[in-house]
Amino acid sequence: MRQAATLQRSLYDSLRKAVLDGGLPPSTRLPASRDLAQALNLSRNTVKAAFEQLVAEGYLRATTGSGTYVCDVLPEEVLWASADKSAGRPEQDWPTPEIKLSKRGSQVLERTWTLGSQWAPFVSGVPDVEEFPQKKFDRLEALWRGRQRAQWLTYGGNEASRALRIAIADYLRQARSVRCEPDQIVITDGVHQAVELTTRLLADVGDSAWVEDPGYWGIRKLLAINGLRVIGRPVDAEGMTLPASKRHAVPKIILVTPSHQYPLGAVMSLRRRGELLDYAIRNKIWIVEDDYDSEFRFSGHPIPCLQGLVPNSPVIYIGTFSKTLYPGLRVAYMVLPRAACRAFSNAHSELHRMGRQATHATLAAFLAEGHFSAHIRKMRLIYAQRRHKLRQLILDEFGEHAMHPFDSNAGLHLVMRLPDGVDDVAIADHAKREGIVVQPLSRYHLQPKNASGLLLGFGAVHPDRMEAPFKTLAKVIRAAS
Amino acid sequence: MRQAATLQRSLYDSLRKAVLDGGLPPSTRLPASRDLAQALNLSRNTVKAAFEQLVAEGYLRATTGSGTYVCDVLPEEVLWASADKSAGRPEQDWPTPEIKLSKRGSQVLERTWTLGSQWAPFVSGVPDVEEFPQKKFDRLEALWRGRQRAQWLTYGGNEASRALRIAIADYLRQARSVRCEPDQIVITDGVHQAVELTTRLLADVGDSAWVEDPGYWGIRKLLAINGLRVIGRPVDAEGMTLPASKRHAVPKIILVTPSHQYPLGAVMSLRRRGELLDYAIRNKIWIVEDDYDSEFRFSGHPIPCLQGLVPNSPVIYIGTFSKTLYPGLRVAYMVLPRAACRAFSNAHSELHRMGRQATHATLAAFLAEGHFSAHIRKMRLIYAQRRHKLRQLILDEFGEHAMHPFDSNAGLHLVMRLPDGVDDVAIADHAKREGIVVQPLSRYHLQPKNASGLLLGFGAVHPDRMEAPFKTLAKVIRAAS
Repeated sequence: MRQAATLQRSLYDSLRKAVLDGGLPPSTRLPASRDLAQALNLSRNTVKAAFEQLVAEGYLRATTGSGTYVCDVLPEEVLWASADKSAGRPEQDWPTPEIKLSKRGSQVLERTWTLGSQWAPFVSGVPDVEEFPQKKFDRLEALWRGRQRAQWLTYGGNEASRALRIAIADYLRQARSVRCEPDQIVITDGVHQAVELTTRLLADVGDSAWVEDPGYWGIRKLLAINGLRVIGRPVDAEGMTLPASKRHAVPKIILVTPSHQYPLGAVMSLRRRGELLDYAIRNKIWIVEDDYDSEFRFSGHPIPCLQGLVPNSPVIYIGTFSKTLYPGLRVAYMVLPRAACRAFSNAHSELHRMGRQATHATLAAFLAEGHFSAHIRKMRLIYAQRRHKLRQLILDEFGEHAMHPFDSNAGLHLVMRLPDGVDDVAIADHAKREGIVVQPLSRYHLQPKNASGLLLGFGAVHPDRMEAPFKTLAKVIRAAS
Repeated sequence: MRQAATLQRSLYDSLRKAVLDGGLPPSTRLPASRDLAQALNLSRNTVKAAFEQLVAEGYLRATTGSGTYVCDVLPEEVLWASADKSAGRPEQDWPTPEIKLSKRGSQVLERTWTLGSQWAPFVSGVPDVEEFPQKKFDRLEALWRGRQRAQWLTYGGNEASRALRIAIADYLRQARSVRCEPDQIVITDGVHQAVELTTRLLADVGDSAWVEDPGYWGIRKLLAINGLRVIGRPVDAEGMTLPASKRHAVPKIILVTPSHQYPLGAVMSLRRRGELLDYAIRNKIWIVEDDYDSEFRFSGHPIPCLQGLVPNSPVIYIGTFSKTLYPGLRVAYMVLPRAACRAFSNAHSELHRMGRQATHATLAAFLAEGHFSAHIRKMRLIYAQRRHKLRQLILDEFGEHAMHPFDSNAGLHLVMRLPDGVDDVAIADHAKREGIVVQPLSRYHLQPKNASGLLLGFGAVHPDRMEAPFKTLAKVIRAAS
């Protein structure tokens, strides 16, 4: 086998050389493979394979019946032409094509704040992955891999992901008062993918979407790159506000974070939830409920989700394991109205394909066996303590006024207010140079506002290691104010 | 802790009830939490938590200083309003919101051919996952999980994915003649994600893209949903053709499968490659090279890729492990020109986030330790045998004419020609009812054509189990012709 390949390669090389240096001039008719094989004492297949290769690469042309000929224009000649007069020049002298990004591409690259370190204090929006029960998870994964059937290696849509949908539905019904059956759930690789799927299936280019202002810029970028007009709705202590006057353009979709408004932390009041549902039902539009951080509420009992407030609500519910387990897991889920399930899961399969069945099966077992709820209960206590500690540090250093009034004792970050007009971006940049990552509040505002502040994540900072970086941050802030 | 929660819950319930049944009429001022705590012999925190909850849900309002009051409009009233006069009705009577899909959403759902079984003969484009060395892969994964550091659980961009980029770069340089360094590689969750990232960063809504006609409809859907005008370029025996006249609109991007044109199987001649590069360089546009199936060439040596043909080529190279390992792995890669690396990897992180580090580390080891190349060598022999067997079945049953002339002895499927005008969709539907999955060639054509044929995948069909289903398919075909 190998020997045949070598013979064929050397025949290919010598023929190609002969063609290039004119030993076999253009239009020359080559001997039939049979004769050449005999002459060279090679197998006919070896000769045919070498011919095929040279035909495929454009050195020879085979005309059925009448034999094989040397081409008139050789690939090399074409290539030198394509090289734009720089043929023969050393590699570094070849023209480097210029990259001109599209308008939407440039938009995506504006304000890329999360890029870079995930490991400094006070990175916000990340859980303490050190606390994740990796060994337990790995044991389950090994177990499931053992039982794995080859089918699981193909694209998704089989019993492994079904087991996960069942486990997620059970969890959401109990813990979040979501009204759902397993077949209403679509599993995605993250919240972004879920939001994007929803946007594309429900809205066309030029349609508009309401988002909270301030709000998560990541979602705004997704909406914009999908051609939607992004309209910011101001947030008050009860959550996203609705327009007072009837004279406004009705959007196609409304995206909200009712359980814990991001980033300010307000809980959407039941009254506002009612008004929002009412608005969506009357106008026949859809609400996308991002229930992020809902598991981490440290006083009172968790607020029931918007989706389950009334039957058949016009709500698409989205949740993720990125904050409850770990971000790198890349598993999120959406709960769809029955009427939309088929369209969404088919489109998901068409656009994103699926797979990762071993991960889905492991996660299903992790939920079904209660490890997930146990982990959340454990982390809720840990985060409550860290939140308390950070809050104390802020109060001691800057006083009550520094705490944002909408704060609702939940989540993985705190919003610290700065005097209006203070340049929070400059402070964040300065802090970064000191090895501290804080997010400037002004960056979350769609409408330029002089509201100034900082997001401080406490999820991944051990209480004993919180004070020193906070003192450093305080110095940076005082230097700027 | 738990007891406090119970007390708080019961206080919450009784207060809420009192508010709802008028025991506490609107605007009533509640006693201060301290006094109420004393009166009920509860801790003040318990009372405060219950108050907080009721405020959050809109039953009470707290006005700093002057105390806590019962709200004038209660959440329930708002909710009943929102329920659109159907309050009190049984659940099934609640209005079900109607789903109106967007135009682009409906496009995505047209011609959803791959949906459904991945396990019948002759599903095309899937490898034989039964042959995947699962145990070897799992051992490596266990090994790496053992060494895993918590950092790997966060979003990507660390040493695990770096190891994979290094391994992929080594492989591509050796096996595919790609010109690249590890930092030119971006790892994606699949080819679709890579194509979509490219489309969005290089083209805006309304820009046009050239695709091969016939070609892969999946890519056409991605381009369309991103607002591009999809222009089909006819394919001949040398691959995608270029327009003869100068009078045509120059596209923003050109998507091609030079190694093995999908679905017809032509290898793009070196001459055509030169012309294509020349066209792209002169017009300052980009070529997206989908190098799918390039590993499975059964005669001659693999054709070098387009990207590496000349230095600094205007080519974005895309490959995947879906066919060489297994589809459910969901790992693909793109090779970018140096000038574009930073923009693409930042945008990738902004839009898709990353993670799955354990998978990346395992895959890196699988490549670096030579298991990947070994698996490809093994599968190349297996597939060659299966291809030969299927080809023989077709020849014996329908003769030489049934084989597509562009066929180039590579890949995981064969294209069988049917007499012009024969309804290949009807045949595919009929075959599906017989438990046989074949793709109708006409579906791959952008311009309606009467070219008729079937794609038969042989990758996942054992030679000994090939004849029976083929005979059944032959009957179905004869019945239709």
